[in-house]
Amino acid sequence: MSWLRTHTCGELTIENKGKEVVLNGWVSKRRDLGGLIFIDLRDRYGITQIVFDETNSALHSMAEDLRSEYVIGVRGKVINRSDETVNPDMKTGELEVEVSELKVYSKAQTPPFEIKDDLKTNEETRLKYRYLDLRRAELQKNLILRSEVYHTIRNFYHDRKFTEVETPVLMKSTPEGARDYLVPSRVNAGKFFALPQSPQTYKQLLMVSGFDRYFQIVKCFRDEDLRADRQPEFTQVDVEMSFVDEEVIYTEHEALMANIWKDHLGVELKTPFPRMSYDDAMKTYGSDKPDLRFDVEIHDISDDVAESGFKIFNSTVDKGGRVLSITVPGEGSMGRGALDRLTDKVTSETGAAGMIFMKLNEGEITCSVGKFLDDETMKNMAETSGAKEGDLVLILAGPTPDVYKQMGGLRLIIGNQFDLIDRDQTKFLWVTDFPLVEWSKEDLRYHALHHPFTSPKEEDLDKLESDPKSVKARAYDLVLNGNEIGGGSIRIHTPELQQQMFSLLGIDEEEAEEKFGFLLDAFKYGAPPHGGIALGLDRIVMLMSGAGSLRDVIAFPKNQKAQSPMDSSPSEVSEEQLKELHISLRKTANN
Amino acid sequence: MSWLRTHTCGELTIENKGKEVVLNGWVSKRRDLGGLIFIDLRDRYGITQIVFDETNSALHSMAEDLRSEYVIGVRGKVINRSDETVNPDMKTGELEVEVSELKVYSKAQTPPFEIKDDLKTNEETRLKYRYLDLRRAELQKNLILRSEVYHTIRNFYHDRKFTEVETPVLMKSTPEGARDYLVPSRVNAGKFFALPQSPQTYKQLLMVSGFDRYFQIVKCFRDEDLRADRQPEFTQVDVEMSFVDEEVIYTEHEALMANIWKDHLGVELKTPFPRMSYDDAMKTYGSDKPDLRFDVEIHDISDDVAESGFKIFNSTVDKGGRVLSITVPGEGSMGRGALDRLTDKVTSETGAAGMIFMKLNEGEITCSVGKFLDDETMKNMAETSGAKEGDLVLILAGPTPDVYKQMGGLRLIIGNQFDLIDRDQTKFLWVTDFPLVEWSKEDLRYHALHHPFTSPKEEDLDKLESDPKSVKARAYDLVLNGNEIGGGSIRIHTPELQQQMFSLLGIDEEEAEEKFGFLLDAFKYGAPPHGGIALGLDRIVMLMSGAGSLRDVIAFPKNQKAQSPMDSSPSEVSEEQLKELHISLRKTANN
Repeated sequence: MSWLRTHTCGELTIENKGKEVVLNGWVSKRRDLGGLIFIDLRDRYGITQIVFDETNSALHSMAEDLRSEYVIGVRGKVINRSDETVNPDMKTGELEVEVSELKVYSKAQTPPFEIKDDLKTNEETRLKYRYLDLRRAELQKNLILRSEVYHTIRNFYHDRKFTEVETPVLMKSTPEGARDYLVPSRVNAGKFFALPQSPQTYKQLLMVSGFDRYFQIVKCFRDEDLRADRQPEFTQVDVEMSFVDEEVIYTEHEALMANIWKDHLGVELKTPFPRMSYDDAMKTYGSDKPDLRFDVEIHDISDDVAESGFKIFNSTVDKGGRVLSITVPGEGSMGRGALDRLTDKVTSETGAAGMIFMKLNEGEITCSVGKFLDDETMKNMAETSGAKEGDLVLILAGPTPDVYKQMGGLRLIIGNQFDLIDRDQTKFLWVTDFPLVEWSKEDLRYHALHHPFTSPKEEDLDKLESDPKSVKARAYDLVLNGNEIGGGSIRIHTPELQQQMFSLLGIDEEEAEEKFGFLLDAFKYGAPPHGGIALGLDRIVMLMSGAGSLRDVIAFPKNQKAQSPMDSSPSEVSEEQLKELHISLRKTANN
Repeated sequence: MSWLRTHTCGELTIENKGKEVVLNGWVSKRRDLGGLIFIDLRDRYGITQIVFDETNSALHSMAEDLRSEYVIGVRGKVINRSDETVNPDMKTGELEVEVSELKVYSKAQTPPFEIKDDLKTNEETRLKYRYLDLRRAELQKNLILRSEVYHTIRNFYHDRKFTEVETPVLMKSTPEGARDYLVPSRVNAGKFFALPQSPQTYKQLLMVSGFDRYFQIVKCFRDEDLRADRQPEFTQVDVEMSFVDEEVIYTEHEALMANIWKDHLGVELKTPFPRMSYDDAMKTYGSDKPDLRFDVEIHDISDDVAESGFKIFNSTVDKGGRVLSITVPGEGSMGRGALDRLTDKVTSETGAAGMIFMKLNEGEITCSVGKFLDDETMKNMAETSGAKEGDLVLILAGPTPDVYKQMGGLRLIIGNQFDLIDRDQTKFLWVTDFPLVEWSKEDLRYHALHHPFTSPKEEDLDKLESDPKSVKARAYDLVLNGNEIGGGSIRIHTPELQQQMFSLLGIDEEEAEEKFGFLLDAFKYGAPPHGGIALGLDRIVMLMSGAGSLRDVIAFPKNQKAQSPMDSSPSEVSEEQLKELHISLRKTANN
């Protein structure tokens, strides 16, 4: 007789009463009770209670050997649970399966940690036994959500006539921005492929080919030093469209997000999403990805203090810096100790040199540098900061743009510390009008703020050589609750402007030809105006699921040393393999 | 006024007459006719004729500058074509757009080859200008078909509750079979990741985790010497299921193929597909992927000739080899010259030492080694070969299994040469009951015929040590028209059997632990019985589209030297990059 399951463990209801069924699954819990053995049999779909009675003693004694995580099959009849064991919260809660036959597929050792949700086990152990960690309902839920989100995304683009195209994983190394992962070629001695940091050039070439609308959910790779929210390989929803402007990209992707949120979180998003220029975001929130779930804003009190008696304020303003404040509502009575701890946190996390505070209590204003300031100045500072009786004002002074970024960091610290963030809100935002380039003090040249293929705004073209810093890009980021979840731009599509852009970035003609000659060539044969976007899928699913880490929405992630503790990769390889690839290890290598 | 298109170039019909429209696209063809300028404006969706008259002389003179492949936008009014220019075969064939405004987005140089279907340009040039080659209708059609096939496949699995999971691209190097592509680690000096040859171990771990049904369309990589139908990176539909047997996998994937063929080729496939054991396929067709679109079969005439006067036949049979024949219907009058050419082709392509032939003409049997054979023997040979008056019989003799493979090659040669293959047929076939292992003369050890995770048949378990060659595997291949388009197996799911299998393959315990310890460990914590399949997506789309090469269904393929002529990758990288990766080029490298 077949041992193929007739039902999953999440499927039976009391409607099936009397039916003979076959179930397969894992032993989740076992209770022995007055000669009866009850087992919660678990699979991905749910849990069904099975019961062994004493009438068949051979079977009963087999059941006595069953331990947690054994994999078994059972044949049996669906019966009512006894009244006191009915669980109305479970789909299968009214029934149990009275087992007549048992098959043990696999025994199981005691796992190194229990398969349960509120796990305290350290992450390295969880990663080593990833296949057990993935049995936990929480991770299963995350990965199934991820699978469903893929489906919604792909249907969305398919319905809109986008063509899904796979671009190469083995491509040309053109390091610009992050480091490439390299792949030595065996057939072509001494040469290397790179893994894509993004399929940027390919998707633009597809537009030159006339594909018109392209999308792909694609792995990308950056060999960067890892932070908590980075992985060496990550997944991007990659999109490019021809003959469009920014508005089309915004509208389409607001609709995509609305679909995803509706289908999987039951949330109706309000569209269109608000927009904010990069300059406004930096000035008001000290960030190019402001978290709008709380409305604390940055105030510029430079004018109030430029002529004050406090040297640091004066000299900051004199040197072109700014004095900025933020008001924490209702925290005007914070004690000295708490303020010192807050100051330490702010200076260490944001890099600010120091923090000044001001309290509005019982009609009086006190300030940590009050002895240098007159009452009128302090009153003006408080007023500009929008501070009211009972509030705390925090002040940073320094050169721009650093002081804005420090203030942005401070804003998030107080948002979290004083629970100002409404975590039930979903705040999407387009950040627009980014600068085209920024000056790199290390490299002594301009870097593209997005990438070298981003089009400058047409009205700024005449400043490209005379005043590059003031040129705005046709670039945009999609921000969700303070996280950048996507970014894109309208691209350059003529060889002349692309060459001009390379020059501006200090890439001379020879280098441009060697690295990007194929793109410049492609533009010579009739390129349509085009633009696109790339969305960070891992991060989107992380934010949707409320997971604490990208690692909780990736099936087999790397740890923060870019290693997989499960299979001990990366690992040493044989001399023979290296020889075939025409490479050797450096003697200086620390191995 | 907006220049966003109101319609694509494949969308307008005469119903839109009188409407003002904006179209964008490429200049495909231009005809100047009595002061009028006609242009075929092309985009992915179709072609619309646009016309410039002389009433607006500035516009007319702009239009005179338009050349092939310029990218333009036009605003104009939909009007009737003149009767003599109506094209009833085109959706847009009754109308033209009378242009009132023109915008030139990009000029175009004369492309290195014309954008048309019957292209004679050599492949290297086509790959160098891939973005132009991809403008051709044929390649656009192939890639759009590919995109649609992804969609059907994903919906199929989604509807059946499969979870789509992405597995890592940076994984552990466990070379077994083909060569790994390696990726040096910067953070972990002297260590390497490998790119996946397939996500085999990961998908099995997902089963151990309880995901139950997994699928993914995923890039895989093999660093092999390239043949015409191989690419360094290829795309696989990867599937794994728990608690199933072979029948479930067959049924599901017959349904998948039926869906694909119906949706995209309008063909109703007959299911279930026929099945054939590996032994039968080898004996009858000399191939483990027989092309059943023609029914020529191999006959074993060893018994007829074992005692004949011809030494080669006798000694072949004595040494355990076989004498095999194939009958070519109606070719009994083939001349000596044609037979010599056929013999040359067969010996050079199949490795056969020589070919013997026999003709049945005018009631007589003649044979190329007839002087060694009596009439009775020849009559028996003809009869066993199923040959009739007017037929040609071709004979190979040699050791097994080589002679069967040579015969399989011969069968395809005559199938093609005499046009015996019915190319309108679609012949799916499951090949089953593969041997578990084969002996490698080079390595002097057994190799897994599929891979080391394939389960032996339960009834053969006792022969695993005593007679490994006779053990059959629970493995299967899906064959279409003589092409292997997929393969899979029911897997081993206990650590004991897996360890036994590793031993059989000459992988000692230490090596097994180092390479696959995580999988052996995983099996210790409760692994379900599971199995799966991997389908070659590139090849499936190639066969569906009738493309002549995998390169015609991949957007940016590599050439046969594993290079991309477009961007000249792989390429040299900087000493700085190598240093960061702790590797150096070997002096012996040919660079």
